[in-house]
Amino acid sequence: MTEAPTATGTREDGSPERLAIDTIRTLSMDAVQKANSGHPGTPMALAPVAHTLWRDYLRYDPETPDWPNRDRFVLSVGHASMLLYSLLHLAGVREIDADGKPTGAEAVSLDDIKQFRQMSSKTPGHPEYRMTTGVETTTGPLGQGCGNSVGMAIAERALAAKYNRDGFDLFDHDVYVLCGDGDMMEGVSGEAASTAGHLKLSNLCWIYDSNQISIEGSTSLAFDEDVGKRFEAYGWNVLHVDDANDTAAFARALDTFKATKDRPTFIVVKSVIGWGSPKAGSEKAHGEALGEDNVRATKKAYGWPEDAQFLVPEGVKEAFGGAIAARGKPAREAWEALFARYGEAYPEEAAQLQDLRRGKIKDGWQDAIPSFPEDAKGLASRDSGGKVLNALAPVIPALMGGAADLSPSTKTDIKGKPSFEPDNYAGQNMHFGVREHAMGSIANGMALSYLRSYTATFLVFADYMRAPIRLAAIMELPVVFVFTHDSIGVGEDGPTHQPIEHLATLRAIPGLDTIRPGDANEVAMAWKVALEHTHEPTALILSRQAIPTLDREKYASAEGLEKGAYILADAVGGEPDVILIGTGSELPMVADAHEKLTAQGIKSRVVSMPSWYLFEKQDRAYREQVLPPSVTARLAVEQGGSMGWDRYVTSDGATITMSTFGASAPLSKLQEKYGFTVDNVVKVARELIEKSKK
Amino acid sequence: MTEAPTATGTREDGSPERLAIDTIRTLSMDAVQKANSGHPGTPMALAPVAHTLWRDYLRYDPETPDWPNRDRFVLSVGHASMLLYSLLHLAGVREIDADGKPTGAEAVSLDDIKQFRQMSSKTPGHPEYRMTTGVETTTGPLGQGCGNSVGMAIAERALAAKYNRDGFDLFDHDVYVLCGDGDMMEGVSGEAASTAGHLKLSNLCWIYDSNQISIEGSTSLAFDEDVGKRFEAYGWNVLHVDDANDTAAFARALDTFKATKDRPTFIVVKSVIGWGSPKAGSEKAHGEALGEDNVRATKKAYGWPEDAQFLVPEGVKEAFGGAIAARGKPAREAWEALFARYGEAYPEEAAQLQDLRRGKIKDGWQDAIPSFPEDAKGLASRDSGGKVLNALAPVIPALMGGAADLSPSTKTDIKGKPSFEPDNYAGQNMHFGVREHAMGSIANGMALSYLRSYTATFLVFADYMRAPIRLAAIMELPVVFVFTHDSIGVGEDGPTHQPIEHLATLRAIPGLDTIRPGDANEVAMAWKVALEHTHEPTALILSRQAIPTLDREKYASAEGLEKGAYILADAVGGEPDVILIGTGSELPMVADAHEKLTAQGIKSRVVSMPSWYLFEKQDRAYREQVLPPSVTARLAVEQGGSMGWDRYVTSDGATITMSTFGASAPLSKLQEKYGFTVDNVVKVARELIEKSKK
Repeated sequence: MTEAPTATGTREDGSPERLAIDTIRTLSMDAVQKANSGHPGTPMALAPVAHTLWRDYLRYDPETPDWPNRDRFVLSVGHASMLLYSLLHLAGVREIDADGKPTGAEAVSLDDIKQFRQMSSKTPGHPEYRMTTGVETTTGPLGQGCGNSVGMAIAERALAAKYNRDGFDLFDHDVYVLCGDGDMMEGVSGEAASTAGHLKLSNLCWIYDSNQISIEGSTSLAFDEDVGKRFEAYGWNVLHVDDANDTAAFARALDTFKATKDRPTFIVVKSVIGWGSPKAGSEKAHGEALGEDNVRATKKAYGWPEDAQFLVPEGVKEAFGGAIAARGKPAREAWEALFARYGEAYPEEAAQLQDLRRGKIKDGWQDAIPSFPEDAKGLASRDSGGKVLNALAPVIPALMGGAADLSPSTKTDIKGKPSFEPDNYAGQNMHFGVREHAMGSIANGMALSYLRSYTATFLVFADYMRAPIRLAAIMELPVVFVFTHDSIGVGEDGPTHQPIEHLATLRAIPGLDTIRPGDANEVAMAWKVALEHTHEPTALILSRQAIPTLDREKYASAEGLEKGAYILADAVGGEPDVILIGTGSELPMVADAHEKLTAQGIKSRVVSMPSWYLFEKQDRAYREQVLPPSVTARLAVEQGGSMGWDRYVTSDGATITMSTFGASAPLSKLQEKYGFTVDNVVKVARELIEKSKK
Repeated sequence: MTEAPTATGTREDGSPERLAIDTIRTLSMDAVQKANSGHPGTPMALAPVAHTLWRDYLRYDPETPDWPNRDRFVLSVGHASMLLYSLLHLAGVREIDADGKPTGAEAVSLDDIKQFRQMSSKTPGHPEYRMTTGVETTTGPLGQGCGNSVGMAIAERALAAKYNRDGFDLFDHDVYVLCGDGDMMEGVSGEAASTAGHLKLSNLCWIYDSNQISIEGSTSLAFDEDVGKRFEAYGWNVLHVDDANDTAAFARALDTFKATKDRPTFIVVKSVIGWGSPKAGSEKAHGEALGEDNVRATKKAYGWPEDAQFLVPEGVKEAFGGAIAARGKPAREAWEALFARYGEAYPEEAAQLQDLRRGKIKDGWQDAIPSFPEDAKGLASRDSGGKVLNALAPVIPALMGGAADLSPSTKTDIKGKPSFEPDNYAGQNMHFGVREHAMGSIANGMALSYLRSYTATFLVFADYMRAPIRLAAIMELPVVFVFTHDSIGVGEDGPTHQPIEHLATLRAIPGLDTIRPGDANEVAMAWKVALEHTHEPTALILSRQAIPTLDREKYASAEGLEKGAYILADAVGGEPDVILIGTGSELPMVADAHEKLTAQGIKSRVVSMPSWYLFEKQDRAYREQVLPPSVTARLAVEQGGSMGWDRYVTSDGATITMSTFGASAPLSKLQEKYGFTVDNVVKVARELIEKSKK
């Protein structure tokens, strides 16, 4: 198979197309070989496909790679990162800094490629958003790029519906994905594809690299379904290209995609992994350097100078980058001119779009945050969460999200607004279906395309969507992941639905702000913080059951939430004997225990601690003001597992937490069983004080 | 729709079939109404289907519900638990205790049904394995029952291939699943279905309740794909039943399933949620009590006494349970007789099967555990893990598992053994494909059918399979989840592939033993512990990179691992000044630091702490022997996040851990960057000692 004739001709033909394709291939091989680490086979196989897509179809201006209406290219096969780095290099993409300013450097220089997989290089093992200009999303964990792409396509349709006007087609770009067998085996891609089919996202094109090889060997070992037929069942337009080297056939498929206006397109491309190398068609071409001898043999097969390394023949960059720029630059310039005229005709909308691009919300939005009066009966924090969301939605045009078929329970619908559906892309409420994993991945894609996306499901189902939550944190995307039904407060549904370990597992993710507000006013502050974040995702943890709204005349202001933890109520007359720490639905219980202790003449402090993440960001003075080192009798009360609380209660403290799974019963019975009662808080607090005085 | 004529006739017909079906419906309605919590609509819709399946097809002996060759019934729609409890009650299933002995009680009595969703009842909100006899698996989190069922079907095929002999068809049972739209939307069911189609599991039948209603409203809001066509693409036999009440049509579909020998069967049954009630066909019939008035109205529509509650008309139990027993009891008795003859012909195999049933491994297996000589170069713990697994496989016939397309990396193949493939069900190595989520769920199903299942992938991808890991812990299944590439030791693949928070997130799951062994001999002990567990799953955490094999003459025996933590090396001459705690690949680093400190005249102790779970099970005396309260200068070193370590290092201690995501670079560079060097361990240890002396 190594020297099969192809429609693209051979190197000896002097075809500039083949020259560029082989440049991508050899750069990928050389970089992996130099690093002695990486994945050469897929870039070698897909170079013709990627080359055709970029040179002849992708609407992209290498000089302005952050132009909003550019087509998006998602490399869901993130391990094939050298394919993307080669493309960015050959296309002459220019680097943009974090403020959106050109640095004057190449996005990926040849030197960068030589630093593949080295510390602090712009060419890490898998493509990383924010690290390398032109990387539209961080990929590697399989299926995630597919999910992200659906979010990007949704965002394009939503922005078009919201902002396009007659004569002003500001948004009409497409989203292309390169994906592979691994992506197709992962359930998340199926969930995402089903969603895209339902939504008839005709701006979405997945190019499926069907190389029939997986790491353990032939895909026939585990995967022999008819993927194309499956996508037809999802409602996609399915096309086939029998040879990845047949660029003419692939171009025809792309033409069909461009002409298809009623559904997404799925192009099945048969390819040979490691094409042209002695390891071609074998799993051995996947995840390791080919070896020097094989690199030479492959170059020979390509008609390439065998000793040349990192060779970019003269004219290749010019031809490839030139073709892209010749299409993309005028398009971008025309768009800028259009946008300038739009700004005159629709100044408010234009200003909103400028804000979106900068990840900014128009000043004054915080004024819309509601406050809640004292209410002993109170309301579930999912309910107050819904109220806050609904109060904010009118002033934050970019806010868009929904639930995994649980909005009546999570209370995350924006009331009175239509649903985002194929017949109404102006709808604001997403129906993600019972697809938590894709929901997270789609929300990330929406955030990558300017939207302030949010998701919602029960906290226990955070388990289904950990991968995208983690990726939101890695990418520093300010997605808001709403999780309701946050404890044994779920009650009768029992252990499968009662989160125990989930607070800890979210708090453990670097860069994720996990906030568990303790009453309606803390919920309001939590939404404020979440939307002020520009580089952190938030996990917003809300209760199923009612929580009293605290009297903020009597207690400290809920604004303390912004510091992660604050003194809600303090002992009168000197240092407290004990510090009671509460979060979420347990905060009022702790406050009541404090009242009882006070009545018993015991000095206690109540610390509300909705966010460990924010608290850790405070300076030491503040942290020690809230939790003075001298007071080691500390009791944390939380209807979840104890993992991590030792940090705050110290070795002399204690927790009232869950050490087992829960049970199916009404909440009040569960609280008795597990010790979540005011009396038990008082009892344990007194024991701690006694112990600390010994 | 409430009184549409049906093929089953009406109550007034005096049809015993309809009488039993309406008994199931009304018991479900009444139990939910009494609890004022639960899901009435699906039991009401699916009662005819479940009735037909149980009465006329399921091979099941109500007197001996643990008979190994019984058909399995999986309620993947776990929220419809009252359907299952009603079936178990009406079938007259007898309770079996944890030792497999009959208790004389009913598995589910009418009183139990009246205690639906109450504390400690046998009728919790969702069906729970081990809590209620006849519940084959814990369900509720959607898609999991589907995944489990594939594992059960695999186990049946594997046991048949291994133990059946000419004239001795010991295993030939089927696995039936009731699943719904939510199951179908979840990616895990797609992964599982693709696997089952590939494996041609003709013993598997999924009955898909297509009621076109989801919690947010019509499924058309989010889910309008052609599910049947999708299953055809997976290689399933797809059948359609247009009305759940048409039991004759459903019976014909089951006949077709029984006659289909080359692939699994998928029966799409159209149903009306809450059939017969004023809320029929609406999402309002899904997840809450119907309300007393509606209950009465529904009973009236059924021709049922409106005031009767928990009514089981005379003869219903006898007819339903009698029909099941008439088929199942002789079959079970014949099987017992067959097995007795088998025991004479194949005593070794019969003894193995007896062990399997009891979850026992034949005495003496531990003798096969290898030990490893000192080796400064050492080997990766994934490699030693592979060696231990291969040493144990020949003596543990029930051991069966594989990887999510990563076995060359996870080293989890049993060498020289064939793969479990459609043309060879005697194969022992599973190829799960890039489907981590289904892999976990399938492994649970295998464990539920007597196998000692194991899975393997990279630790970072534990995120894709959290739900089944949690369910293994809830169900107390001794599955071994192998996770390799367990830290920044992954190196060049970068942050998307470097686990940071994952150790904490696994340790946070109640009942899961997370073991991170520190050298080859600890790996051997870890496998021993994992296989000795009968009620705990194990997460076995292994390195990508080489770890020196410690000299166990010089250091304490690796048998200490069985206690979770142990003193590997101690200070000479009195209490240590500092305790160094290490796990996994950092253990040798910590041991080296100890040597350096000793050379510097500093008294240090090295504690190897591979399993927090096991350590917490030790008595206080042991725990304080290993970590004396008097020594608070403690330093934990682990190439993961710090979450949870405060518990062991105390407020005066410190950790060398990861506080951010990692980076793409060779490991040695990463270790320098993040402080994982012997010199840094020494430095921080000395600082701690100084601090503690102040």
